[in-house]
Amino acid sequence: MKNVQTKLQIPSPDCNGNPFCGATQWSRKKIAVKSGKQLLTTQSYNMKKLIFLLLISASAVAQLQKTEPPFWYAGMQNPELQIMFYGKNIAQYDVSVTNNVVITGVQKTQNPNYVFVTIDTKNVPASDLTFSFKNKNKVAFTKNYSLKSRKKDSALRKGFDSSDLIYLIMPDRFANGNPGNDSTADSAEKADRSKPGSRHGGDIEGIIKNLDYIKELGATAIWNTPLCEDNAPRGSYHGYAQSDVYRIDPRYGTNEDYLRLSSELHKRDMKLILDYVTNHWGSEHWMVKDLPTYDWIHQFPGYAQSNYRMATQFDPNAADIDHKYCVDGWFVQSMPDLNQANPLVNKYLIQNAIWWIEYADLDGFRVDTYSYCDKKGISEWTKAIMDEYPHFNITGEVWMNDQAQMAYWQKDSKIGALQSYNSHLPSVMDFTLQGAMMSALNEDKGEWDKGAVKFYDNFTNDFLYPDIDNILVFAENHDTNRLNEVYKNDFKKYQLAMSLIATVRGIPQIYYGSEIGMAGDKAKGDPDIRHDFPGGWNGDANNAFTSVGRDAQQKQFFDFSSKLFNWRKSAGVIHKGKTKQYLPQDNVYVYFRYDDQKSVMVVLNNSNEARTFKTSRFAESIGNFKSGKDVISGKTVDLKNDVSIEAKSAYILELN
Amino acid sequence: MKNVQTKLQIPSPDCNGNPFCGATQWSRKKIAVKSGKQLLTTQSYNMKKLIFLLLISASAVAQLQKTEPPFWYAGMQNPELQIMFYGKNIAQYDVSVTNNVVITGVQKTQNPNYVFVTIDTKNVPASDLTFSFKNKNKVAFTKNYSLKSRKKDSALRKGFDSSDLIYLIMPDRFANGNPGNDSTADSAEKADRSKPGSRHGGDIEGIIKNLDYIKELGATAIWNTPLCEDNAPRGSYHGYAQSDVYRIDPRYGTNEDYLRLSSELHKRDMKLILDYVTNHWGSEHWMVKDLPTYDWIHQFPGYAQSNYRMATQFDPNAADIDHKYCVDGWFVQSMPDLNQANPLVNKYLIQNAIWWIEYADLDGFRVDTYSYCDKKGISEWTKAIMDEYPHFNITGEVWMNDQAQMAYWQKDSKIGALQSYNSHLPSVMDFTLQGAMMSALNEDKGEWDKGAVKFYDNFTNDFLYPDIDNILVFAENHDTNRLNEVYKNDFKKYQLAMSLIATVRGIPQIYYGSEIGMAGDKAKGDPDIRHDFPGGWNGDANNAFTSVGRDAQQKQFFDFSSKLFNWRKSAGVIHKGKTKQYLPQDNVYVYFRYDDQKSVMVVLNNSNEARTFKTSRFAESIGNFKSGKDVISGKTVDLKNDVSIEAKSAYILELN
Repeated sequence: MKNVQTKLQIPSPDCNGNPFCGATQWSRKKIAVKSGKQLLTTQSYNMKKLIFLLLISASAVAQLQKTEPPFWYAGMQNPELQIMFYGKNIAQYDVSVTNNVVITGVQKTQNPNYVFVTIDTKNVPASDLTFSFKNKNKVAFTKNYSLKSRKKDSALRKGFDSSDLIYLIMPDRFANGNPGNDSTADSAEKADRSKPGSRHGGDIEGIIKNLDYIKELGATAIWNTPLCEDNAPRGSYHGYAQSDVYRIDPRYGTNEDYLRLSSELHKRDMKLILDYVTNHWGSEHWMVKDLPTYDWIHQFPGYAQSNYRMATQFDPNAADIDHKYCVDGWFVQSMPDLNQANPLVNKYLIQNAIWWIEYADLDGFRVDTYSYCDKKGISEWTKAIMDEYPHFNITGEVWMNDQAQMAYWQKDSKIGALQSYNSHLPSVMDFTLQGAMMSALNEDKGEWDKGAVKFYDNFTNDFLYPDIDNILVFAENHDTNRLNEVYKNDFKKYQLAMSLIATVRGIPQIYYGSEIGMAGDKAKGDPDIRHDFPGGWNGDANNAFTSVGRDAQQKQFFDFSSKLFNWRKSAGVIHKGKTKQYLPQDNVYVYFRYDDQKSVMVVLNNSNEARTFKTSRFAESIGNFKSGKDVISGKTVDLKNDVSIEAKSAYILELN
Repeated sequence: MKNVQTKLQIPSPDCNGNPFCGATQWSRKKIAVKSGKQLLTTQSYNMKKLIFLLLISASAVAQLQKTEPPFWYAGMQNPELQIMFYGKNIAQYDVSVTNNVVITGVQKTQNPNYVFVTIDTKNVPASDLTFSFKNKNKVAFTKNYSLKSRKKDSALRKGFDSSDLIYLIMPDRFANGNPGNDSTADSAEKADRSKPGSRHGGDIEGIIKNLDYIKELGATAIWNTPLCEDNAPRGSYHGYAQSDVYRIDPRYGTNEDYLRLSSELHKRDMKLILDYVTNHWGSEHWMVKDLPTYDWIHQFPGYAQSNYRMATQFDPNAADIDHKYCVDGWFVQSMPDLNQANPLVNKYLIQNAIWWIEYADLDGFRVDTYSYCDKKGISEWTKAIMDEYPHFNITGEVWMNDQAQMAYWQKDSKIGALQSYNSHLPSVMDFTLQGAMMSALNEDKGEWDKGAVKFYDNFTNDFLYPDIDNILVFAENHDTNRLNEVYKNDFKKYQLAMSLIATVRGIPQIYYGSEIGMAGDKAKGDPDIRHDFPGGWNGDANNAFTSVGRDAQQKQFFDFSSKLFNWRKSAGVIHKGKTKQYLPQDNVYVYFRYDDQKSVMVVLNNSNEARTFKTSRFAESIGNFKSGKDVISGKTVDLKNDVSIEAKSAYILELN
């Protein structure tokens, strides 16, 4: 955890051959009132020298390599579209556009290979525009640019919510639907399934092929870890070191495959959640290799690792330097840390996010390392998206161990408001519950703060969250130990864990493979918690995707999970009902989810002994109900008499 | 922690011979518009029967046994004074008063032995009134009642604050100044110093005799555990089971002795903090033995123990029954739980508290088990006192392990405001810091959340508290393990602990005896953390109150403590300065307390090795300062070069 400063091969202000060394970034305001040409004649000595160098080589470099976003949509709520054109020395040209569209800003940076052109799309219908790049009134080249039609009611799309159950997938490890794309010519890392940390070949086709499996399980949404290009030479399988955020990694398929995944999900009335990474890109990102501005990423100069102390984001006593290392330090050395405080960067990230929503018809984002971002910048990013899609949902990874600290980051938090902060983030993740999940089920005694009391205690602070129904609840994810590892595949403990996750407030999220008993030890390294799903590869001896392919244990885990999760789908009282919880006694935890009509009584016996208890203590919740029907066993439990429950087992009783 | 219901010998609604069985308490409103006589003629059958019984025995019972408050003060901000008269069948009389004072209410209860008379003292000068109790217009008896003059500017008295250092004393265990009162005829429990849990004879005189010692140590205020009468047959030494809250326990001395303690403190420019207990009285309290109303205390019926789950005070999911057991359940069986939701009770407690402030010229309250009280009632109690004395201070025992939960209880808390709650309590106690103190100094490695990081982490949430300077900071108290027990009298660890307590934000509180190295193991029972202070008893072989009497270890502990605490007295930048803290590295924790002029740099090397570090990391705090002078060693530390510090040691550097 020490801060280590090392040099990377990225621009730093040592000025050796760096044309924008020491130059300040040109302000947007300046650009707004001056033409590009005027700017070019009023720049510093460094820039003049640069122009001279450009002029003598102009004819050789007139080419456009990238246009981002590659296209856009007509009729967005925010009509301001900022298109980045990238090409060698492109900043020397004057830019114009057809169809009477107004260019409201042309922003150039210290790097002559970029120009950011802002147009006003207000009242511009879906159409094809043409941008012209001129030198001394002579068109050097042009670029066609589409403003496409939006899907009907696109802005009103409804994001995932507490009626959903999310299935988290690591695509490289789920299913290899197309062995032909396991390695591609343009990808640095080739597939090698024998190595735990290499690419294994899982892909979008593999997910599509198994959507019926996921639906059968009872999930209603998938969140897959990033699918965009991650061309890191090693360890690229997790996808968090993205090298092109407009392109699906070819080893996962094509952009069109991703659209197909979306549409196949929607056909099944299921939702697609994209794992967005605002905090960093991979070192192999093409822009990192030719930075638009020195401060596009955080430099110390060069690399410094984050201290991971997210409390510095709000600690009024925090030293500035500690805050800087937290937020500006890199998550790991292969992931240059994006500077969301740079408006050019943030606009780029906002548009990229919106582009994916429109393009792939998304139902939500999960945002990686949310609380490591520039606080103001990430709030603006989040608000910009929610302003476009008021009913969308975004859940942020705010991995803290203190509920007040997590609640700080949820939209309209009164705790955030203590510092006049509003992230605008609709959803956060219940990491304290996840923490409790990793130990409570092994604690037999109902002590002061052990066993089931850990769950109870977690929910006592629900009032700190501004929107408790929009909180992700989960036992594990791709960064934590596997539940079945911690509990040694104890089916009873798995049942207790899932019974809780599926019935408490919030949006349940499960992790691929646990439903068939997959284990994995975080202590052995991340790949161990990211094993291949059995049956996802041709020739797999065991195929857990099919009922006949599952072994006895897999069948036991899956059948229970499928029954529970499918029941939850239509259990509206679980989605939006209130909670009433009772202090665990003898390690038996009882809570109710209820609304005006219905009530579900959940009994979790976390002790190693069978228990019998009186129901009189729960009178205020039982009311006039006389019995409950267990959703798993179908057994009817009489609430007028004492209730008995086996060791380490759960009742989920629909009351009658 | 199980809820056990047992029967006590207190009224319960089983109606066996209980004249007020099942009767509802007469509302104050009703009383306000009817005379006592009218009320007596319009009551229920039960009461009529009672009157009949009274009439035939009236001549024999006309006696006044108690008047509370025993006197009052003219010119209070709240002019409404409610005097409780107690005597056998006193409710049969009509009450009047002299001096044209207006009686605004006469409240009688289910128990005929009480009458609560409310008078309006507005514009009534200090004077002696006479109350007359009449039967059929014939005066049966009278009672003189004084409205005394208040001390000049009494309402503006300034409570203890962050410029103070509080010395916590258990009077029975500190010093026996008057062996003549160790046992008294009217006290059930007699002194027996051979028994750890018995009375040992310590008293007010013992404290007074050693005030110079406490002052020499550097403390500026004392908080002693309760001194009021606790006539429990066993374990009465702690004083939390009070049996008369207007009377000093005779084994501690007289009420006048307490006034003398106050005046002797004030002579020395020191402050007196009374330990107020709103939550409960002792079973031996005279009113408990003849309850004014059935609901004066909480009954289930009879006794039930608290579940101690204070989170039920705000958990929106909490079952009512769990909340009821927390708040209404008794702390222990010998302490009937007062019902602050009963306006009569709360008014009684408010007046008793104010009476002590005026009578004994107090500088503050510490309130026991604050968060176990009725939330609304305790807020009203606190506000009533603070309304009378806007600059007074009250610190509440809110013993929780979560900072948001503790911050909930501080005045004007935004977290409390989430539930429209305001306790009006100016000060809470930093129990999470105390928790960290109990382990961090034994943790050598600077890990993610161990060692010095525990202190750092604690302060990251300071923003949750509405008034961070008004928070009690302490390593230990009479309910926790002894610091010197946890750290086996390791002087270096003691130095680290006190260096921190004396320099962080808030009001430091230390615990008697630790300054001379006293240890004690909570696991062996409370008496072990409440040993007699050596030298407090005639014939003690060791007298640590005097320099010559201290052994080498006691001298080492005391001399350091005295130097540190006396330095703090005049260190204004510690009292009110801001804090800047730096993430511990290698278990070395550095923070600054600073204002516009001054800065103190605190370095706590919590590792078992000497450390050398660069000062450049602290540039934003060091600024133009060049060196620092350590307040303990007097050594000057050059900040322009690397700084070295010995293992397990502290610098407290005044920067120059």
